[in-house]
Order: sequence, then C-alpha cells, then structure tokens
Amino acid sequence: MTRHDSRSVDDLRDIRITPNWQDAGEGNCLIEFGRTKVLCTASFTEGVPRWKSGSGEGWVTAEYAMLPRATDSRSARESVKGKIGGRTHEISRLIGRSLRAVVDMSKLGENSIVLDCDVLQADGGTRTASITGAYVALALAVEWALDNKILTESPLTDSVAAVSVGIVDGTPMLDLPYEEDVRAETDMNVVVTGSGSFVEIQGTAEDGTFDRDELNALLDLALAGTARLTEFQKEALA
Amino acid sequence: MTRHDSRSVDDLRDIRITPNWQDAGEGNCLIEFGRTKVLCTASFTEGVPRWKSGSGEGWVTAEYAMLPRATDSRSARESVKGKIGGRTHEISRLIGRSLRAVVDMSKLGENSIVLDCDVLQADGGTRTASITGAYVALALAVEWALDNKILTESPLTDSVAAVSVGIVDGTPMLDLPYEEDVRAETDMNVVVTGSGSFVEIQGTAEDGTFDRDELNALLDLALAGTARLTEFQKEALA
Amino acid sequence: MTRHDSRSVDDLRDIRITPNWQDAGEGNCLIEFGRTKVLCTASFTEGVPRWKSGSGEGWVTAEYAMLPRATDSRSARESVKGKIGGRTHEISRLIGRSLRAVVDMSKLGENSIVLDCDVLQADGGTRTASITGAYVALALAVEWALDNKILTESPLTDSVAAVSVGIVDGTPMLDLPYEEDVRAETDMNVVVTGSGSFVEIQGTAEDGTFDRDELNALLDLALAGTARLTEFQKEALA
Amino acid sequence: MTRHDSRSVDDLRDIRITPNWQDAGEGNCLIEFGRTKVLCTASFTEGVPRWKSGSGEGWVTAEYAMLPRATDSRSARESVKGKIGGRTHEISRLIGRSLRAVVDMSKLGENSIVLDCDVLQADGGTRTASITGAYVALALAVEWALDNKILTESPLTDSVAAVSVGIVDGTPMLDLPYEEDVRAETDMNVVVTGSGSFVEIQGTAEDGTFDRDELNALLDLALAGTARLTEFQKEALA
Amino acid sequence: MTRHDSRSVDDLRDIRITPNWQDAGEGNCLIEFGRTKVLCTASFTEGVPRWKSGSGEGWVTAEYAMLPRATDSRSARESVKGKIGGRTHEISRLIGRSLRAVVDMSKLGENSIVLDCDVLQADGGTRTASITGAYVALALAVEWALDNKILTESPLTDSVAAVSVGIVDGTPMLDLPYEEDVRAETDMNVVVTGSGSFVEIQGTAEDGTFDRDELNALLDLALAGTARLTEFQKEALA
Amino acid sequence: MTRHDSRSVDDLRDIRITPNWQDAGEGNCLIEFGRTKVLCTASFTEGVPRWKSGSGEGWVTAEYAMLPRATDSRSARESVKGKIGGRTHEISRLIGRSLRAVVDMSKLGENSIVLDCDVLQADGGTRTASITGAYVALALAVEWALDNKILTESPLTDSVAAVSVGIVDGTPMLDLPYEEDVRAETDMNVVVTGSGSFVEIQGTAEDGTFDRDELNALLDLALAGTARLTEFQKEALA
Repeated sequence: MTRHDSRSVDDLRDIRITPNWQDAGEGNCLIEFGRTKVLCTASFTEGVPRWKSGSGEGWVTAEYAMLPRATDSRSARESVKGKIGGRTHEISRLIGRSLRAVVDMSKLGENSIVLDCDVLQADGGTRTASITGAYVALALAVEWALDNKILTESPLTDSVAAVSVGIVDGTPMLDLPYEEDVRAETDMNVVVTGSGSFVEIQGTAEDGTFDRDELNALLDLALAGTARLTEFQKEALA
Repeated sequence: MTRHDSRSVDDLRDIRITPNWQDAGEGNCLIEFGRTKVLCTASFTEGVPRWKSGSGEGWVTAEYAMLPRATDSRSARESVKGKIGGRTHEISRLIGRSLRAVVDMSKLGENSIVLDCDVLQADGGTRTASITGAYVALALAVEWALDNKILTESPLTDSVAAVSVGIVDGTPMLDLPYEEDVRAETDMNVVVTGSGSFVEIQGTAEDGTFDRDELNALLDLALAGTARLTEFQKEALA
Repeated sequence: MTRHDSRSVDDLRDIRITPNWQDAGEGNCLIEFGRTKVLCTASFTEGVPRWKSGSGEGWVTAEYAMLPRATDSRSARESVKGKIGGRTHEISRLIGRSLRAVVDMSKLGENSIVLDCDVLQADGGTRTASITGAYVALALAVEWALDNKILTESPLTDSVAAVSVGIVDGTPMLDLPYEEDVRAETDMNVVVTGSGSFVEIQGTAEDGTFDRDELNALLDLALAGTARLTEFQKEALA
Repeated sequence: MTRHDSRSVDDLRDIRITPNWQDAGEGNCLIEFGRTKVLCTASFTEGVPRWKSGSGEGWVTAEYAMLPRATDSRSARESVKGKIGGRTHEISRLIGRSLRAVVDMSKLGENSIVLDCDVLQADGGTRTASITGAYVALALAVEWALDNKILTESPLTDSVAAVSVGIVDGTPMLDLPYEEDVRAETDMNVVVTGSGSFVEIQGTAEDGTFDRDELNALLDLALAGTARLTEFQKEALA
Repeated sequence: MTRHDSRSVDDLRDIRITPNWQDAGEGNCLIEFGRTKVLCTASFTEGVPRWKSGSGEGWVTAEYAMLPRATDSRSARESVKGKIGGRTHEISRLIGRSLRAVVDMSKLGENSIVLDCDVLQADGGTRTASITGAYVALALAVEWALDNKILTESPLTDSVAAVSVGIVDGTPMLDLPYEEDVRAETDMNVVVTGSGSFVEIQGTAEDGTFDRDELNALLDLALAGTARLTEFQKEALA
Repeated sequence: MTRHDSRSVDDLRDIRITPNWQDAGEGNCLIEFGRTKVLCTASFTEGVPRWKSGSGEGWVTAEYAMLPRATDSRSARESVKGKIGGRTHEISRLIGRSLRAVVDMSKLGENSIVLDCDVLQADGGTRTASITGAYVALALAVEWALDNKILTESPLTDSVAAVSVGIVDGTPMLDLPYEEDVRAETDMNVVVTGSGSFVEIQGTAEDGTFDRDELNALLDLALAGTARLTEFQKEALA
C-alpha cells in the first residue's frame, strides 16, 4: 500500500536536523519531519527551582508552543488569550518527562535546562519532532557545559527519540502527517531510548477502539522508526 | 508477593459505586477505589458548543478537579491561582476522550453532557476512578433522557472503565494506591471498553524505562482489572 | 403557619454533623442543614502569612466554594473562568471573620489554620452551614494540635454558629431552604457565639425594606436557632 | 464625650455634596464625608444585560474602586494585579443592592444605569459615602432621562443613604473616620431609605462581640444620621 | 485662523495646576489642560525593585489610568477586564521614561518614586498633561524628602513638560482637545526639558503621511508650548 | 568612524528578505537585519471585527512576539505569565499603525489582515525589521487576494519601511544592533513610505536629551536608510 505522499507504511518522512540553527541557546537545532518544522533550544542556567534547592540535583523541563500561523488557519496566541490551553500543557509535560528519562539528575548538579520547542510549521507529529529535536538541543547544551567545565561528566544516560504511529483506513502506519492524522482510527505516540526501551506510550482510539494485535503492529513500526531517528540524532551530533 | 495492604498483585482495592449519591445532576455517583473517593456528576443540557452547532451531533466533555485537602497536604485552589494547572487539563481531557469513545454522537442529537469529576479524597488512581465513575453517571443521565423522552434511543455503544497498573520494586501490580504509585518505576493507565478493547493506553517510565515483556504483563493485569470494574458498573446500574 | 416542608416557622431543618468524614485534614466534618451539605476541613500549618510574621500571633482564614453541580443547574467552575466571583469572595471573608472572633491569636502562636468549606449540595443556607461546620473542624484541629503538643492551651475563647432568617410572605422564619430564600422579602444571616453574643449581622431587604419590629422578630428567631446549633456542635465534638 | 476631631458621638463629619462635579455622566457628584472624597457617576445606557433581555425591566449596578494613593500608603492597582479583590467585590455588590432597593425596575424599562464610585481620598466610611453619593448621581441621571423623554415617569420609589456606626472604647459613635474605625470593637454599616426603613444592616464584631443593647444604640445613631444625610441629598438635588 | 474654542493655532488651552490637591502622597497636584483633568500623585518609598537592589541607585516609574467615565461614553474598567490594555501600558511607559530623563538616579539613592496619573476627565492631551503634572508631583516629593532629611541634595537635573501638536485640516496647531485630535491628519506628542532639549518625540500620521516641513512647523509649536508649560510648573512650585 | 562590525555610520546591516519562507499564510517572509531574524506572516480572512462590521471597510492589525530564547538570556513566555507586557503591546500597535498608513480600507472591503511578526533571533532593530518585513507579507497577501479574485484592485497606496537610528558616543548612526543600542544616548525609530514621507517618528533620549541639530542628522540617516530598504522590498516582491 502506498500513501498520498508515496511513502510505504513503514517509511519516515524526510528527516532533517540542523544543529546550531540560531545563535543563542547553549544548544539548539531546527528539526524537520517532512513539512513539520520545530525550533528546539536548550537554555542552561545555574540553580534549580525552589523545591529542588539543596537536593544536589538538577532539573530539566520543557515548554512547547506553536506560532499562530504554523497551521493552515490562524490560531489566537495563548499570550493574548491570557492562558495556556490544555493541549499545550499536555505536550510540554510529555516532552519534559521524556527528556528527564535520560538524564541523571545528580550528575547534572544544581543546574537547570529548559527546552523550548517552538513549532514554526505544523504538519502532524509536532510533539514527536519536538522530543527528537529537544534531545539534540539537550545533548549540545551538555557538550557546552562540559566544554566550559560547568559539568565534569555527562549526565546523559542514553538518547531519546519519538515517533507517531496510527491506524489509517485499517492499516498501521508510521509517522503520520496531518492529512493522515485526522483520518486515523487510532493514534499513538511512542517515546523510545537509543537502546530501544520504552519511555512513554500514549495510544488513543480516535474512532472506535483497538485490540492487542493492532497495538503490537503499531509498536513494531514505532520501534523501527525511533531506531532510525536515533541514527539521525547521532549524525547531527557527530 | 503480598502488598502493604495485603492485596495480591492482581487484586483491585475495595471498589464501591453509590449511584445517585446527591440530588442534582441528571446522573451521578460516588465512586471509591479504596480510600480514593470521586464524586462524578453528569449534567445533560440541550444545545452544543458553537463549533458543533448545526451538525446534528451532540458533545460530551469532562472537568476534573480536586478539593484542596483531598490530599495529605493542602494544595492551593486553582480558582484562587486564577488558572488551571497542566495536570488538571491533562486528566480532564483524558476523561472526555474516554467517554466519547463509547458515545454515538449522532444518536445523542444536539445535546451536551458535561461530566464533573470532583475528587473528595485522593489516594492514587483518581483519574481511573473518575473515568469508571463518570461512565456510571453518563449511563444514568442517558437513562434519564430516555425516560424523559429527550432521547429515543441510547447513544451508548459500550461501557468504559479504567485502571492503573505499574511496576513496583520490579513487580507488575494492579490498581496502585499513592504509596505504591510514588515508588513505581513504570506507571500505566489503561482505558478499556466493556467488550475488552482498548480506548487509551498511557504508559510512562517514571524511573528508568520498560521493555516489551513488562508492557505485556501490565496490559494483562489491566485487562483483568477493567473486566472486574465493568462488573461493578453493571451492578451499580442494575 | 406551616411551611412547605411542614416545619413550623421557628424550626431548624434536620441538622447532621459528621466529624472526621474524610481522612485528611487536622479536623473536618460534613455538615448538613436539610439537603444542604458542606464539607468543612481545617488545615493546620506552622508559620503565618508574611504580614503576620514575627508578631507571635497566628492566623485563621477560610475559603468557600461550590461544586459546579451543587445546584439545580450547573455553574461554570471559577477555576475555568480564571477568577473568583464576588459572592465567593464575600462568603469566604465572612466565614474567616466569624471564626477569628472566637480565636485568641496570641495563644495560637505563629501557626495558621485554613478552613475549606466546599459545598457538595446547595439548598439555601450554605454560608451559615459553612460557619457552623467550620467551627467544628476548627475545634477538632485545635484538639489535634493539643494532642500533638503543638499548642499547650486552646486558643478558642468560645464557639460560634450561624443561621439564616428571613421574612417570607410577611412571616419571619428560621433557616430558609432555597425555595423560601428566593421568595424572601428580607434575608438575614446571623452569626452568634455559644454564649449568645453577636459576631456578625447581615440583613438585606431583597424586595422592599424592613422595619425595626421585623428586625427584632428575626433576631429572636436567629438567637434561638443558633442556641440549638451550638448544642449540635457540642454533641459532634463530644 | 468628645472625639479627637471634637465632634460629639452623634455628629456626622462635614458633609458636602457637589452635583455635576464633572462634565461626563448622565448624573454625577463629588461627595465628601470629612476627608473622605468619592466621585460618583451614573452612566445611563439603553439595553440591559443578556439575562434581563426581553423582561421589560431595567438594571442598576455599581462599581467601587479606590485610587492607589487614596490612602496613607500606596496600594497596588487591581488592574495591575489582574484581579479584583474581595473587599472591592463586596462593596460594589453592597452599593448595587442598596440602590436597586429604591428603583422600580419595570418603570426603568430595558435601560441600564451603572454607578461608578471612585474613591479619590479615603478616611473611613468610603462605602457609606459611596451609597449616599451614588443615590444623588442616580437621581440626576433619572432627571436627565425624564428631560430627554427617555423615561416618562421616575422609577425612583424613595431615596437611600448610608452611614457607619461603631463602638469605640465602649462608646457607640456615628460616622467613623479611619482613626476611629481601626480602634472600633464593633463596626456597622446601615443603609436606610428616605422614609426611614432599613435596606441593609451589616454589623461586625472586630474585637470581641456585641449584645442586643449595643446593637440598639448603634441603630438609633444610624437612623438619626441617615435622616440628616437624606436632607443633604435633598439640598444637592434641589 | 481661529479654532472652535476661539484659540489661535499657537495657544495653549487654560492651564491650571493645583498643588497638594489631596492629603496623601509625598507630592501631588491636579493639573487641568482645558477640560482635561489629571490627578498626579507621587509616592516616595524606601527601597528599589529587586533588579536595582544593591546598585546604590533609585527608581522612578509611572502608572496611568482613566476613570471609566472620564470620557463621553463609559469604558469598562481594566481591573474588571483583568488586564491592562496596550494604550495604558504605552502611556505609563512614556510618562516613566520622560521623568527619569530629569532624575539623577544615584542622587536619589535606593529610593523609589511612583507617579500615579489618574485621569478624572479626558478631553485630549491626557498623556501630555500627565507628564507635565507628574513633574510637579515629583518635584514636591523631592522637596518633601529634602525637608525630611531623607535626601541631602535634589536628584532633579531639570524640569520636564509635554504638549501635543497636530495638523488639523492642513494647519499645524498646538494642544489639541479631543474634537481636534480625532480630526488630525498628524498627531505628535513632544516632551521637552525646562532648558529646551528634547526628551521624546512621538509623531504619528493618522491619515496620510507628513513631510519634513510639517514636522518642523509642529516642533516649533511644541517648543513654544512646552516653554510656557515650564512657566506654569514654576509658579505652581513657587 | 568605523563601527565594531566595520560598517560606516550610514550603512545598513546585511538585509535579507526571503519571501514565502513557510507554507502557511496568504503572504509571508523571513526578514533579516544582520543577526536579527523576524518571521512575518499575513493572514487574510473574510470579515472584520464587530466594531467595523457594516462599514464596508477592512481592517489591518499586527501582533509582535519574541521566542523566549531569541535573546542572549531566556525570557519567560508571555503565555506562561498570563499577560502581554507593555513593550509587546507597544510594538504590536506601532506595526499595525504603520501598515494601516498605506492601506485604503475601503478598497480592502470587509476583510481583515493580521500580520504576525515573530522574532526568531533578536539583535536590535526587531521592531523596524518587523515593519519592513510585515509590508512584504502584506503585499504578498494582497497579491494572493487579487489572484484569487477576492479583491479586484489593490488597497495598497504606497509601501512602508522602518529603520532605527541613534546617537552612540556622540555620533549619529544608522541601524543599531543590540551592542550599540544599549550604549545609545538617543534612540529613534522612523517609519517612512516608499515615496519618502513620514508615517511615524519615535525618538527617545535614553541618557541625557537631544537637540534639533541631532534630530535632523538622525532624520537624514533614517530617510536614506528607509530608501534603501524600499529597494530590498521591491526586489523581494519582484
């Protein structure tokens, strides 16, 4: 079966990671999953939030946002609305948890890293592109801290990448663009470490439900996809 | 292996569902998963949000909240803080999606049902108790609408229940109270229909990662647990 | 004259106070005035707000809120609206003032007690039930602090209870449920100590005005009513 | 007994009402109770809030605010804080209720009058000065509407005025300035119509409690005081 | 050419500055530019915002606001809307910058002065009246601080005043009231020190554009106008 | 005199305008003034804000924002803070006014164009780059509307561009990067049409004041600079 963009069901879209896309940020990259473009920037600062103070441990957190016209029709800015929506909250939290899974907080010491993931253009998979790109920004920031003798050893225990999978017209598929995403019966985001273990699985039946065989088919696709994304990350960081 | 509350690893806590616990609400129940108590109330109103208007279809949504002293130490009210936190947003959205999975929106007609899930006492599993109780409130509200000739046939296509599972000290376990939840290496919430299909799977490695065998063990526990919760729902609605 | 619920004009509704209704909270009770149910919880914490710091004195405050479907039709949550309404503010302040009237702040030391009054079901008189129940929660929290040697002597100087009175169809009546409250020409909330002195009187002409004789008739009813509520409090605390 | 400003206990402070103090507003006055100065402005507009629409009835409401340096030390602006405080809410609601007590809403037709009471200088009694001045602004706006044939008959059923009374050092006194207000054991605001009936009584024990005799002494003072304020209102409107 | 209020094009409106118009505030005045009335109050407090702490320097800032019925039709309060509008922000910042231009922050020491400019009545030119009046309030506060030995030498390096100019029906004019302001093709606010140097120029083409000759004509008018305002300030402070 | 980046005082930085940098938006470009990068996107929608409805005229507005790490140190997001700051408000308003100066609203019909200017990287001059780029996005959107027969004639009456000028170490200079901007004694933003007329002049003395000769020198530089920017805009649109 061939998809509207002529990929096969187990193909990723064109993946491009441009490290150091901008000047500021202790680490940053522009990551593209096809037409989806996310600018991921790591800000490394000394000190931790008050509730971590004195623990000897660091903190890693993330903020996700979309430009108002990242999508086909314009959305109102959350700053203008005066509050952050549920979807933004949810994705920011997911990115933060995914990255913390590969950071040894005691090796980070009492330092904080904020990952800003700003979607410049959205065509499905913005949260998985954000996680995959944020890892690259994080790794660059850690390198910066090592180079600047702020850290003496890397707090990274592994790498992490994420991909979406879904069942569209009854067929399990990898890395859904918007067009497929809205038609998907089931939609799943899978976050996997470089060594192939799960960090997070979020599967949702959008229309109907899904059974265990479908779940397994989706997980197979996701594990193959994240393994390839891990390669792209390695190249970008080489 | 026996747990601190002397349950075996595949036991649910004491489950109690009290339908019509309060007077108002087209359907409501108090649901208890051990010491966790959630008041679930369905409000049925004519009309739908503007973006659904004219579609001939209904809408089901949910709002989750916790009393300030539902937990061991007091939390500030979100109304006082002037905004809803990320966790609240995330859970409200999960409950809404889970219930919509078993509602045929065209049979609901242009009517709305809001499910309020207010946690009176929290001891882990508040989101899964909320989904399980909200289904009961929803079913009671549908019954009310049928009795009052507002609906002519039930829009419910199945029932839905949810349970938490997790790996604690290396052992997969069912229905975690707070004490186990904080110690869990992996934590998963599974939403399943009465006929045993998945609606939503959210698994998170809290400490380390998890592999496919562990995932399968957790899903087995969850499917057994939700099957028993489905029985409790049936009794409550009988 | 007999009322719709067959009480006489100077009868209270069925009053029920269930101390320790929930697990958390240094003191708590569920109080019922007929169909009105309020969960009152006292949170005792060391330390005082900044403006009291160093004074050697403690602080007592209260927060009142209603569940969205405590009433016949659903109200939007104040957390969702992003601000607290005038009525909520007004009642929270009234409860706080009423309780502070019976606390010797220097005997409390630099400790704070927050009283949360959450209305689970509303049928008129929610603010007077809140004050009456909050006193019980407060007294239990003080007992807890004495038992735990956090306080060496009780800072309570008296007990406090409150009741609503009003003129309905020209007749002064005690303890109005919603049905009578909306029809009342004059509505008064009276807060009285266990020894029978006034703490607060708030009388409002809802339709027309009221004269001094009517005021006196209402105060007579209120004093008799609060005396009986004081008895219920004593029993609950026995 | 003589007070620090050499008034006797039953004296009002110097009362001055300047109608048409500013150009805008269908009615307005500057009212002074001693050093307390409040600008009261009535805005008359066609139409009513949505929930009154189609009722044939009008609506009267009020908004109270203080300039940041109306008081001895500067307070942060509520606009800057992003929310209205409990005290502001409470007073705005009190002013609105007090004025609605003397308006026949059906004679007002579907028109709205907003009373803005902005405290330019505060020395105690700002809420009672606001009510007394707002009535003058309201009466001028009604006159304007009659002159402009927007109304054919006056919707005013009476006049309304308010005064504070309190027990200071054991002595009941009329019209407390800030200096006495902070020392008062009991504090009461009384709203009375031109014909001498009560609209609202709000009595609070600030330190200790009060008994029925004290209440009666305070009410006597208040009724005498509001009768004199009614005279000042008449002169201002003459 | 004569204007609707019979001024010539280079005439100011009637300017009146009443120092010490109210009791509170270390310095204050009511300033009137024709029918525009602004109450300007300086609050002098020890200490500086955190980001200035330890610098040995002071801080001067301003807050501008309008009463809801300062204008012909009522505007909603920003406190009620829960946020400050862009225009308010812009003007507050302009006033602050203008005053800081004549203050030597090191001579002020670690003290803060907040200038509150509250528009009681608006008829065009509220921001220029605010700057001109705020300077008077500031100078009075400095005098107060010198009198009270809080400062040992004046931190004021010059005086500052502001005026609006504009091109109305093709003619450059000084000090526009609302009626001219809305018809102006070009509108300019000019802030000038007592010694005749520019602090700020904000010129905007409201309808069409303006060329360099027009700019020069407007600046000539503005410099003459601010010179006269400087005289009024001197008199008020004499 | 040569600057730190070896430009002469009347040189612009490297200007680059990339039209259609992203897929969405009826017109968009990435504009670069040296290291300053702004993404400008025009969203064309049918309909106008309510207050313009029925006027037969269109509306053009703008929203400016910065990514949190556009600058050297990270700023908190305005969406997270829950409100828009004064600087953001001020710049958004300036961009909107500048563009409206070259649009004939009646030729636009009842259509709206929103210009989003998102600063991806900031090195001084973000507001002038925004205006210059927003004009290109606007012109592309107008072209789109003409191509799609939504408009029959162009509502653009001219082009518009903006540049910053300032006095640094006593020398007037064109197009200041951040390094010069913070050291500038006087700072001016000048908005000029393609035909060389002024739309807006905003000059501020940041340290000291400025006189008329300095003003003239700055305006000469600005007019030469905007003339060159107009050429860049023409090329980008060719």
